[in-house]
Amino acid sequence: MELTRLQKQMQFIKEIDKIKQVMRRNYLSDGSRRGNDAEHSWHLAMMVMILSEYFEGIDVLKTMKMVLIHDLVEIYAGDTFAYDEQANIGKEDREGEAAEKLFSLLPQDQADEFSGLWQEFEGMDTKEAICASIVDRIQPLILNAGSKGKMWKEHHVTVDKVLKRNKIVFDKAPEVISEFVRSIISHARQEHYFHNEGD
Amino acid sequence: MELTRLQKQMQFIKEIDKIKQVMRRNYLSDGSRRGNDAEHSWHLAMMVMILSEYFEGIDVLKTMKMVLIHDLVEIYAGDTFAYDEQANIGKEDREGEAAEKLFSLLPQDQADEFSGLWQEFEGMDTKEAICASIVDRIQPLILNAGSKGKMWKEHHVTVDKVLKRNKIVFDKAPEVISEFVRSIISHARQEHYFHNEGD
Repeated sequence: MELTRLQKQMQFIKEIDKIKQVMRRNYLSDGSRRGNDAEHSWHLAMMVMILSEYFEGIDVLKTMKMVLIHDLVEIYAGDTFAYDEQANIGKEDREGEAAEKLFSLLPQDQADEFSGLWQEFEGMDTKEAICASIVDRIQPLILNAGSKGKMWKEHHVTVDKVLKRNKIVFDKAPEVISEFVRSIISHARQEHYFHNEGD
Repeated sequence: MELTRLQKQMQFIKEIDKIKQVMRRNYLSDGSRRGNDAEHSWHLAMMVMILSEYFEGIDVLKTMKMVLIHDLVEIYAGDTFAYDEQANIGKEDREGEAAEKLFSLLPQDQADEFSGLWQEFEGMDTKEAICASIVDRIQPLILNAGSKGKMWKEHHVTVDKVLKRNKIVFDKAPEVISEFVRSIISHARQEHYFHNEGD
């Protein structure tokens, strides 16, 4: 029997509950446990809500939707650790297939909307995608600073790798925000939160 | 030293990480563990994104903000179980104080916005607050149906209590949605997912 539009939507809403089981490497700010993709996406949406004023002319609703859905493909493709070069090989194909499989649960027009938003996020090219990527970089920084670099130390992440990963913040974020990020990194360096190559 | 506007905002963004530790009674859809407020709020925002088309004339961005922040007060006031009448005494005062304490970390204009959105949600009176409350009722239903009533059984929740809790869905939701909710409840009843007074 063909599902109704609402049944398809509700089936999707139930399926995406699985994102709460996709664990990230980052710890919560108090270092007590690792976070998951649902929590992370909620946090990014809050950051968009609070910080959108610094991103001139962005469509706030679109940016919020983008961060809410940006990790959905990981339900099937798994979380790929940003600092694991080996794991990042083939990520694009894996996630593309996952997007196809997941979004096709939705009615066609919404499947197209989700797919479009996700691709736009991945492209990091529009105002909204740039804002979304920037908050996606800053959130782990805040959590890592809070937990005194617990994840960085555990996974041997050096300051150079973090600087490279945050390139979009230094290149594209409003000055006041990149300045803030520089100050977090500089404080973390001072406190030895990063992995030191010499260790 | 007076904090800058951005420092206040970032301090708030760090503080609300604590919502990930506020546990709800409801289990995830697969029954594996209980969910927390951050995951729940993310799920509601997804529901608003997907189901807003059924709510004529609502401001989607405002509704999304509302569901994203609706449980923030629980960081200080704790989660009050909807089916625990005793625990609900004094809830309003507890949460009002928590809102005051938490939102005052933000710059004044944003503190006012958050406070206004939260009060509007609690009022359940505007189009946006009604939509937000409806998805806030339906999400636990979907999770409880998925976990075969795990939470309902554990906390002796009868079908009558669930029907009462979902009053706003039957009174105010578009027909296609309240029909869907009736069908979930009827299926759950058939499968004995609810606590039975006679047990």
